[in-house]
This record gives sequence, structure tokens and C-alpha cells, in this order.
Amino acid sequence: MRNFVYQNTTKIIFGKGTEAEVGEYTKKHGSKVLLHYGGGSIKKYGTYDKVVESLNKAGIEFVELGGVKANPRLDLVKEGIEIIEKEDIDFILAVGGGSVIDSAKAIAVGHYYDGDVWDFFEGKEKIKKALPIGTVLTIPAAGSESSSSCVITKMDGQLKRSINTNLIRPRFAIMNPQITYTLPDYQTAAGAADIMAHIMERYFTNVDNVELTDRLCESALKTIITNTPKVLENNEDYNARAEIMWTGSIAHNNLLDTGRIGDWASHGIEHELSGIYDVAHGAGLAVIFPAWMDYVYQHDLERFAQFAVRVWDVDPDFKDLEWTAEQGIKKLKEFFVSIAMPLTLKELDIPADRLEEMAEKAVQNGPQGNFVKLDKEDVLNIYKSVLE
Amino acid sequence: MRNFVYQNTTKIIFGKGTEAEVGEYTKKHGSKVLLHYGGGSIKKYGTYDKVVESLNKAGIEFVELGGVKANPRLDLVKEGIEIIEKEDIDFILAVGGGSVIDSAKAIAVGHYYDGDVWDFFEGKEKIKKALPIGTVLTIPAAGSESSSSCVITKMDGQLKRSINTNLIRPRFAIMNPQITYTLPDYQTAAGAADIMAHIMERYFTNVDNVELTDRLCESALKTIITNTPKVLENNEDYNARAEIMWTGSIAHNNLLDTGRIGDWASHGIEHELSGIYDVAHGAGLAVIFPAWMDYVYQHDLERFAQFAVRVWDVDPDFKDLEWTAEQGIKKLKEFFVSIAMPLTLKELDIPADRLEEMAEKAVQNGPQGNFVKLDKEDVLNIYKSVLE
Repeated sequence: MRNFVYQNTTKIIFGKGTEAEVGEYTKKHGSKVLLHYGGGSIKKYGTYDKVVESLNKAGIEFVELGGVKANPRLDLVKEGIEIIEKEDIDFILAVGGGSVIDSAKAIAVGHYYDGDVWDFFEGKEKIKKALPIGTVLTIPAAGSESSSSCVITKMDGQLKRSINTNLIRPRFAIMNPQITYTLPDYQTAAGAADIMAHIMERYFTNVDNVELTDRLCESALKTIITNTPKVLENNEDYNARAEIMWTGSIAHNNLLDTGRIGDWASHGIEHELSGIYDVAHGAGLAVIFPAWMDYVYQHDLERFAQFAVRVWDVDPDFKDLEWTAEQGIKKLKEFFVSIAMPLTLKELDIPADRLEEMAEKAVQNGPQGNFVKLDKEDVLNIYKSVLE
Repeated sequence: MRNFVYQNTTKIIFGKGTEAEVGEYTKKHGSKVLLHYGGGSIKKYGTYDKVVESLNKAGIEFVELGGVKANPRLDLVKEGIEIIEKEDIDFILAVGGGSVIDSAKAIAVGHYYDGDVWDFFEGKEKIKKALPIGTVLTIPAAGSESSSSCVITKMDGQLKRSINTNLIRPRFAIMNPQITYTLPDYQTAAGAADIMAHIMERYFTNVDNVELTDRLCESALKTIITNTPKVLENNEDYNARAEIMWTGSIAHNNLLDTGRIGDWASHGIEHELSGIYDVAHGAGLAVIFPAWMDYVYQHDLERFAQFAVRVWDVDPDFKDLEWTAEQGIKKLKEFFVSIAMPLTLKELDIPADRLEEMAEKAVQNGPQGNFVKLDKEDVLNIYKSVLE
């Protein structure tokens, strides 16, 4: 186990009806609020009305900025930064999924910086301060509601880049599983794939003696594997929705990587896909993660065998760890198929013509991954292995 | 799953040599410090010197108060409160195990209260404010380093009572597993029993549909079960020490009871033992917890069967859940015996003559337990069942 520092200060307010408390929680942190959200779904299904009612009840003034898209864009972030300045706003309330929260985080750090906020995403500038933010989560997937990370897409150049700092952890995250009843099945499944990917990125490590966090990761994976089919069967299964929602936060709040170093190649490789083709991040990960596994599993058969046995209940063949390891990857692919997630670029309508360019971009700041270092050729091989 | 609010703000600084950073972390929160500790072991093994060196290096003025005993006493707490006032101290640094940290927590809340600090422990007064505290942990057991709870013993009346508030969570917890190398085996084992008890108190719940937290509890238990024998075999097994130390915090930082209601009867029943006989809390729990299980397991055979199968790898007999459940309790007892923990009051040198009085005190604020409500008669039966 490696030395580590861990702190997560986000207050989680979890359960039925909790969105009605958003006004009271917001009041503790701000007086004038940017209400940030995405498209029409929060209005269509009543979440918007409940949030506005709660804000009004608490006497909180707010300015709205909707229109966040999946794979949130730098342009809207800049618009947000301008509004904050013009309207003298001191708190951002993000009502939505990871895209809305990430957009809010980028606005929060951009507010205190005179230059182009994109500088942070290119590593040109260090983040020193951020406006406080809070969130009412509507999609369990990205884990952004209590994470220290944020991913933004710059359309000019089709670049998807991230920042990571404790300064952007939300002050509070309100999580009502009932709000997720109306998610389309595809989004539920892509969310599950995203959550699993967050756990697996941490799981595949070269750090030895990480038993507790290994087991916590396995627990979180099993919970998603059990509950996702239940939710796809019955969209209003409160308990299964609740398990997925809470696991989605645990998966990405940094507890699971205490003392270890995660891999993160699959995320990097996938970001190039969703940067150009605007596919759902979770769906992209369902394609890339098993492909990455096929490409690297020989690097540590024991770890992949453990994954197979403990997560997928594979009976180990101790004389054939390679076979054992392969069964785990196979089970993961079967699971993704069972929840209607893609396993090929073709299913995402991604053609072969820009693979080279994506591989190039994926390694432009150095090789991808910590478990196994991948150069451009490796990334290209992984893309090619799942073309169709 | 029940609605819940969860926040744990303690910063964990974990790993080799981290005690050298205590001065820098302390500096962020206070300018004049009460250095609080127990007996001679921190001086004997060099931790005291390292902490003092780090405080001096950071230019921090401090006043010392040593002498905290296992099952920390109200008298010393009061002495601490007086010193704080007299010396104008603004931060408490607890170097030790749960007893030292709990003593510091009680001083921290007592400082802002004009009346008798014991009022908080009797529920007569609500805690509104506390001095900030930090800790260098030397014994993994109580989980007090990032918990919201604190247990103090009042010798007059031999009462052991607790308080619980987020206000007393330490600002930081420095945890170097190397510091635990010198723990006597008995203390290591009692610590393991205490950690397991914290998890099991949360595990045995009547709340349905708590899959993620069930699995997280099982993970934490398995980690203690694997690593405690390793440490008893080799006191300087860093990795095993690290697993136990980090699990000890996770076990009691409230993550594992998100969405559920724990039982806590065993803790209540044990407190009467250690209140009067001053036994190690973990050793007392090793006696009481299996006895409690024997007394209540019929209440939910499915949960006890799950405990047996998932934690102890018992092969379930689905046609005989009672047998299956019993195997788990049997394995727990065997484990405690294997790490030289007692299973009877006799082994703790506790005679039969005050059982009635202890049972009476255990229920003086109402029945014990949430999983099964236990009245005085039940508590007495549990004591009697493990007399010898």
C-alpha cells in the first residue's frame, strides 16, 4: 500500500424527496445563485419545478443557465463565467448529471482566473480558487457529485480534457433515486458502464498489498452487476436505483483508490471517441474497457484471475490462470451485451477513418495508462481490435 | 435503503513517516496546542520525540497533558478543560489510540460549556461547539480518528457513556502503520475485535435492501480476518498493519451505515463491563458479541446465513438456514480464540456478583439494541450465558 492523503468533504443528502431541501442547503453557502442545467428533461419530469420552489421558499435569488449538452462544451462554460461576473453570483447549483456538474465546476474555477479557463485543462495554469458549487444529481454515472474531477470538451479541435482538484468538490450533493426513474434505459446502462469503469480503472493497479480497497472495489462492482438488470426490468425499482446511485458516488469519490495508483488508459482512449463523435461516455467505455483488457491482461494474470473469481464468480483453474483471467473479461463483455451496451465502434457508428488521429491525440501528453504504458501504436491497436 | 445524510471531513494522512508532518498540519488549525497523550509507550518508542520535533520545527507552542488511561476518565477531561482555559489553547493534538482521542474530544466540547461536561454524556445538554482537534493515531481499534463519537468513563458511579456529533470529528488523522509495530499482541487482537465489532454493529440491521453497504461491511471484515493473524505472526508486517489500520477507520467513519440502522446492543452491554472492571473494550466485545449473536440470531436467519456465507465462506445449506447461520457464529468464535481473545467473562476475571447491577445500568436509558430490543432480563441472560 502506498502513502496517501484522503479527504472528501462533500455532504451527501440521499433519499426520497430530498430535492425539496435544496433551498436550505444552498442558503448555507450562497446568496445569489447560478442555476445550471441541461436540456428539457428536468423541466419535463418536474425536478426543475421542485428545485425552483425550494429556492424560492428559502428566499434565494437565482439566474438560470441551461443548455448543457452531454460531453459539456467550453463555449457554455465561458458564457457561465460571464454571467457570474455580470450578475455578482456567489454559488453555482448544478441540477443534472455529470455533464452539468462538470460544466459548473469549470465555471467555478474560471471565475477566479483572468485568462482563458482552458489553460487549466491544458495544464498551463494551476487552479488556486473556485466558487462553491452544489448539486441535485439526476443521473448516476460520472460520480462528479462528490468527485474532484471535471471533463470539458473544446469543440474547436475536438479536444476533451480534464482537471482534478479538491477545490471543485461540491459542497453538497442531493441524491434522490426517484428522480432517476425517468432515465431512458440506454442512459441507465451507459451510466452503469461508466460507474463500473471508474471502479475498474482503480482496480487494475501495479501496487501490491491493497486488500481492503480491492475488496471494496469488488463490492461496488458486484452491486452494479446485480442492480442494473433489476432497474432495466423495472424502471421504478427504488431500492435498485438507490444502490446504483450511491455506488456511483463511492466509485469516484477517491475512497477506492486510497493507497493505490489507478490505470486510466481506458478513460483517456475513450475521451478521444466522445470528443469527436459525441457518443455517451459510458457507451464508449463499454467498447474500450474490454478491448483494453484483452490487450493488457497478460501483464498481470493473477490480478485478472482475482477479478474473474471475486467479481464474476468464475471457478478458478489454478493451473491455467490465463484461462481464468479470460473468463472474467468474457463475463464483463457478456454483461455489457446483456444491458444493451455496445462492444464495437461500429455499434457507435464510429468509422475507421480517424483512428490514427485519435490515437495521436490520446498520447499527445505522453503514454496512456499506469498499469501498462500504452503508446500511439498500442492505442491504435486497441481501436482497431473493436472496429466491428 | 433509508434516507441519510453523510459527510466526513477528516483529512487522512496515511503511510510511512507521516508523523513528521504533524507540525505542518497542526499549523493550519491552531497556534497554541494541548498535546494530549497516554502512558509511556509513545515516549518509549520514539513517537513522542518525532511529534515534538515536528511541532518545534513548525514553530508551534504547546502544553502537555499525558496520563490518559484505557477507558478514559472524566477527571482528566476536566483537568484538560482547565488547562485549555488557563493557557489560552486553540487546538488539541491527541497522540495515541481511541482513549486519548476520546479524551481530547471530551475536552474539546467541554471548553465551550460553562456547566459540567458530563451533562453532554447524560444527554442533558446539546453540543453546539467544539475546539478543533487533530490526531496521530497509535492504535487501530476505536476508529475515533475520523469518527463522530466519543466514550468517557465517570469513575464515580462507574458509568461509561458516549456522545455523538460531527463537531468532534478530528480535522486530520495522521496514520503511520509503522507506529503500530510495537503494540503488544493482546492489544493488536483486542483492536481487531473492536474493529470487527464496529462493522458487525452496523451489519446486523432490520433495514432491507442495503446491498452496497452489506458488501462493504463484508469486505472490511474479511480484511481484518485475513490480516490480524499475519500481524500476530510478524509484528512488523507493514502491509498487514496498514490494512488493519485503514480498515479500522473505515469501520467507524459512518460510511458503512449509510442508509441503514445499526444495532449497538453489544457495545452498550460491553460498556457496563469495561465501566466497572476496566477490561480492554475489544476484549469485552469478543466476549459479548458472539453471546449476543447466540441470543438473537433466530430473529433473522437469512441475515446471519449471509454473514456465514459471505464473511466466513460457509457452504450454505439452503434447507437449513439455522445451521448455516450457526456456522458463521461458530467461525467468529473460533477466530477470536485463534487470536487469543476471550469468549467468557471468567477469562476477563469478571465474577458473577454484579451482573444484575450491570444489566440494570445497561438499560437505564431504555432497551438496548435496534436489531432486537433487549430489556434488562435479556442483557442479564447474555451476561450469564458467557460466565465461564
